Amino acid sequence: MVNQNIESRITLLGAGPGDPDLLTLKGVKALQTADVVLYDALTNEALLEHAPAEAIKVYVGKRSGEHSYPQDTINKLMIDYALNYGHVVRLKGGDPFVFGRGYEELDYAASYSIPVSVIPGISSSIGVPGLQQIPVTHRGMSESFWVITGTTTSGEVSADIYQAAQSNATVVVLMGLKKLPKIVEIFKAAGKHHLPTAVVQNGSAEDERLVVGVVETIEGLVQQENIKAPALLIFGEVVSLHPSFKKLIKQYASIA
Amino acid sequence: MVNQNIESRITLLGAGPGDPDLLTLKGVKALQTADVVLYDALTNEALLEHAPAEAIKVYVGKRSGEHSYPQDTINKLMIDYALNYGHVVRLKGGDPFVFGRGYEELDYAASYSIPVSVIPGISSSIGVPGLQQIPVTHRGMSESFWVITGTTTSGEVSADIYQAAQSNATVVVLMGLKKLPKIVEIFKAAGKHHLPTAVVQNGSAEDERLVVGVVETIEGLVQQENIKAPALLIFGEVVSLHPSFKKLIKQYASIA
Repeated sequence: MVNQNIESRITLLGAGPGDPDLLTLKGVKALQTADVVLYDALTNEALLEHAPAEAIKVYVGKRSGEHSYPQDTINKLMIDYALNYGHVVRLKGGDPFVFGRGYEELDYAASYSIPVSVIPGISSSIGVPGLQQIPVTHRGMSESFWVITGTTTSGEVSADIYQAAQSNATVVVLMGLKKLPKIVEIFKAAGKHHLPTAVVQNGSAEDERLVVGVVETIEGLVQQENIKAPALLIFGEVVSLHPSFKKLIKQYASIA
Repeated sequence: MVNQNIESRITLLGAGPGDPDLLTLKGVKALQTADVVLYDALTNEALLEHAPAEAIKVYVGKRSGEHSYPQDTINKLMIDYALNYGHVVRLKGGDPFVFGRGYEELDYAASYSIPVSVIPGISSSIGVPGLQQIPVTHRGMSESFWVITGTTTSGEVSADIYQAAQSNATVVVLMGLKKLPKIVEIFKAAGKHHLPTAVVQNGSAEDERLVVGVVETIEGLVQQENIKAPALLIFGEVVSLHPSFKKLIKQYASIA
């Protein structure tokens, strides 16, 4: 049963890393015209206040380890709401196309000829290091950064991490905390035992936590400080620019 | 002569890729409390309207080829204004730490003990492909993306581009249009003649332009369409998801 007077459309909206003030003005405008908002686990619920009070708000979150809403179900819900209610805002953590499965949603909507707009969000891959004043690039230190998922469809560590460990890029791994022992092993195999490394939990949120060390100390630090997912890993000389790293320099020198 | 009653502070603010609506709410709030705004060539001047009418607005732009304001001068201006006027917002295109020399400014301010906040911006490296509905990552196609500068201090192409051309990552090159012939040569040397490739001029702005092809056709297309800087290069299978690429598939098949 589809209402023929409805103008169906979908906006894939990047919510940013967590702090609701990291939403864009374009994002606010999209939410203000939403008939339905479908939102993820990582979305700060304060963002929903930009949507009209009468808009339908549906939690379709997927947390690590939970699979309450398979992607297929989200796709179908999105179409169903668009056909029946009009403007669906699909609110996703970070940027919709950085490991957000955004293109799958876009493609599914296109198969129903429902127009889709994309509004980029601050990706935690850049924004979370930046808020910690760790620049992903810095003259004379890093001419590039490489962002990789720690969680692949196969359950194995991405082959790209092996290449990245050999490269000069700043390497940022999203959703990689569970794989940290394996990732550390890969960097060690590349001779990068003393490469500065940081792990940030809940980046940009009020309860953000950070540990800073080097490849061969980071696992111990994560355990000691009881760092939990969601967390982001940063490997690269740029981590040495963080104030906490300066305190480690003596220790670092003694193990180098 | 420094006014002792001034509370000096600096905010490094990422303006996003060009569309003024891609500024964050946090960015708006910073501008609203600015005493001085120092802004770049790539900044859309509509953004300045968020600052109070009485705030001082100073253009410190560096365009490709021009060097009217060396970095050193910008650093000194920033400090001078902070000491004499209070809150300086340093408004930078994209994200302050993605080839923005943001850390140099932060470091310089720290040497004067002036507190610096960082507000991330939408980096064109992710946002510009995304607005074109080219996802930098996509399941089964790309598990990572690698962002590299095309313009290094030495004037040579970054060594990282040679590694990137060998990798499975989606490769995004910023400020690389002038080096396109050399970059194409590097991808060809890696056997990537038929890798889908896009070039986007003035990403997210009203006069945005795009060409889509493969490594061995992209230079001709850029010339034919008279694409100019600022432009962003995207190399990767994900470019094949763009609607324009589907039209090329026949041609692509015939050369493959």
